[in-house]
Amino acid sequence: MNRKTRPTLDSLDTPCLLLDEARMEANIEYMKARMRRLGVTLRPHLKTPKSVEVARRAMQTPQGPAAVSTLQEAEQFARAGVRDILYAVGLSPAKIDRVLALRAQGVNLTVVVDSVEAAQALASRSRAAGAPIPALIEIDADGHRAGVRPEQQALLCAIGRALHEGGAELRGVMTHAGESYSSPDVVAIRDMAERERSAAVRAAAVLREQGLPCPVVSVGSTPTAMFAENLEGVTEVRAGVYVFFDLFMAGLGVCKQDDIALSVLTTVIGHQPEKAWILVDAGWMAMSRDRGTANQAVDQYYGLVCDVAGRPLPGLVLKQTNQEQGIITLRPGATGTLPDLPIGTRLRILPNHACATGAQHDAYQVLRGADVAAVWPRFRGW
Amino acid sequence: MNRKTRPTLDSLDTPCLLLDEARMEANIEYMKARMRRLGVTLRPHLKTPKSVEVARRAMQTPQGPAAVSTLQEAEQFARAGVRDILYAVGLSPAKIDRVLALRAQGVNLTVVVDSVEAAQALASRSRAAGAPIPALIEIDADGHRAGVRPEQQALLCAIGRALHEGGAELRGVMTHAGESYSSPDVVAIRDMAERERSAAVRAAAVLREQGLPCPVVSVGSTPTAMFAENLEGVTEVRAGVYVFFDLFMAGLGVCKQDDIALSVLTTVIGHQPEKAWILVDAGWMAMSRDRGTANQAVDQYYGLVCDVAGRPLPGLVLKQTNQEQGIITLRPGATGTLPDLPIGTRLRILPNHACATGAQHDAYQVLRGADVAAVWPRFRGW
Repeated sequence: MNRKTRPTLDSLDTPCLLLDEARMEANIEYMKARMRRLGVTLRPHLKTPKSVEVARRAMQTPQGPAAVSTLQEAEQFARAGVRDILYAVGLSPAKIDRVLALRAQGVNLTVVVDSVEAAQALASRSRAAGAPIPALIEIDADGHRAGVRPEQQALLCAIGRALHEGGAELRGVMTHAGESYSSPDVVAIRDMAERERSAAVRAAAVLREQGLPCPVVSVGSTPTAMFAENLEGVTEVRAGVYVFFDLFMAGLGVCKQDDIALSVLTTVIGHQPEKAWILVDAGWMAMSRDRGTANQAVDQYYGLVCDVAGRPLPGLVLKQTNQEQGIITLRPGATGTLPDLPIGTRLRILPNHACATGAQHDAYQVLRGADVAAVWPRFRGW
Repeated sequence: MNRKTRPTLDSLDTPCLLLDEARMEANIEYMKARMRRLGVTLRPHLKTPKSVEVARRAMQTPQGPAAVSTLQEAEQFARAGVRDILYAVGLSPAKIDRVLALRAQGVNLTVVVDSVEAAQALASRSRAAGAPIPALIEIDADGHRAGVRPEQQALLCAIGRALHEGGAELRGVMTHAGESYSSPDVVAIRDMAERERSAAVRAAAVLREQGLPCPVVSVGSTPTAMFAENLEGVTEVRAGVYVFFDLFMAGLGVCKQDDIALSVLTTVIGHQPEKAWILVDAGWMAMSRDRGTANQAVDQYYGLVCDVAGRPLPGLVLKQTNQEQGIITLRPGATGTLPDLPIGTRLRILPNHACATGAQHDAYQVLRGADVAAVWPRFRGW
């Protein structure tokens, strides 16, 4: 990029998405080191960044491994050279053509099933294509989402056999402790991590006892990945949001506010002094409608307000949003007075949920210190 | 499009956004006829569709008039030939360059201010450019958002003079009855429409009494536009969501569920029979995080479930969502049993909020009857 035309925090069009590169790199390094120490493979979930540049930093190698939530992500990352991809959402049979096309290009793409019906469809398409599609069986560790409960041994084995004997490839089991997102504290997250581990390991044992292969035991969520103490029997951990973190994770106690690498740059566009309101050009279109902290101990509304350098402005929250307008005010019950922020002042808003806020934007403006050092595109769609 | 390769409701990749063209056209015609009858100009707010194809149908002429919520919208619609555009969100001075560039291309772009400070910035930039930028003064009819209250006569006139005498063009006043979105019933919406009208008309009278020009008196929101009975003194009405409608508007009593033109096509990917859950591939990424009906009399969760033909399946709602997975179940308290919807079944989900759900997608799959007759791109960003 031409140095002279490079935008600055003062010249960027607002609202836009800022990525603090140093914070992101620290988050990535922390998780890599943690997984090395625990002796498991890290499979970063790229549904959070949806960016080739971020993916290359988060993955162990440029070829992967990685997890994705859509085939669009798989296709985009495959184009960028990623070769080991887990499509970590239950597969619908209509998507098998795209799976086969990616595999035919040399991508080691693994899918997820949790029913005999889906396993049979996958096996039948594998046979027809003369190319076994590898699959993990989803295990339900906490009643939170999809998956087979580890005690449903007959079902588990029936799915395993439908894959293994039907012509697909039974590659293992996976689980996601979705309930860790509502853990009251770090102790509960540690318990949840153990529950996630033991559910997956038990399911793997059930399959192996029946003579079925189960080389992969995949677990993960950012909270459990950050606090698991023992991952015996697990081969890989998936996590996504740790790359950026967000207010929801800070509220859970999984990170500090200072670890949050993502923010939305906004500009003051008006005031309503009698109501102690500051109006900005970041509404829900820029922040997303995610209000995930509403049920946490501290509600962060649509986001925490920082100055342009990223220092939190005490007591200020993005209290309400319209489509393209946000209302900043003091948090209910906060003491102090509204700072003087004239029209044109630039602010940064820390988001509730990195995945949701990120998805509202087409690019990251990458901050190296206070410099806007690069623009990294994001993609979306299915 | 080649007839042979045209996708069908059964072959489209899911999730995707469906637009029922006949419903949209009926909604558009109803509003056009209503505004004709009331003797005012309709200025459709294109922040809802963000699509040139939809805009051309909603506008009175291919040149406009239209309202937008971002300069990105103004630029996109200008490229498509729209010439009369109101940028209906308070302007930050940093955006004036882009306003001037659009005006230099022959676009009659009007902006909105609500402070002397912003008016002075606009006037000063108008003088420097030798090109008066036209502006409306935002009036606060209900304490809901930005704007000057009509009784703040001194402030109103000071802004008016800063524009008119400073070198910009004072073109009039505008207000938006945001509070109409929380009206308990249609009677309250009618009252709100009258409050919106009278606030704008009073503000215009204040300016005119001071010898200031005020040719434009602009009001509007979909609820007030649908129920206003008298628009005396108003020159134009802005409304956006009526083009598609949504569950929130149906909950307000502003439309019927059968008027909703937008839905998300999804595929069943699994079941949790013990919990009476049906899992689909539409999560919050496809629906948005908008839970606007949560505070209405009937909570529609993440959306109402219909069969592939668009007929509601009684009692079924999209109860919970993950990023790429939704959980359909019977509404709490609903009687009846879960229908048998095997893996691969296609369903349609009616959205809470057309603006938010639309924004999650890059295109409309346009339904003419049961045919996917066209694909209309959407844009986004700022």
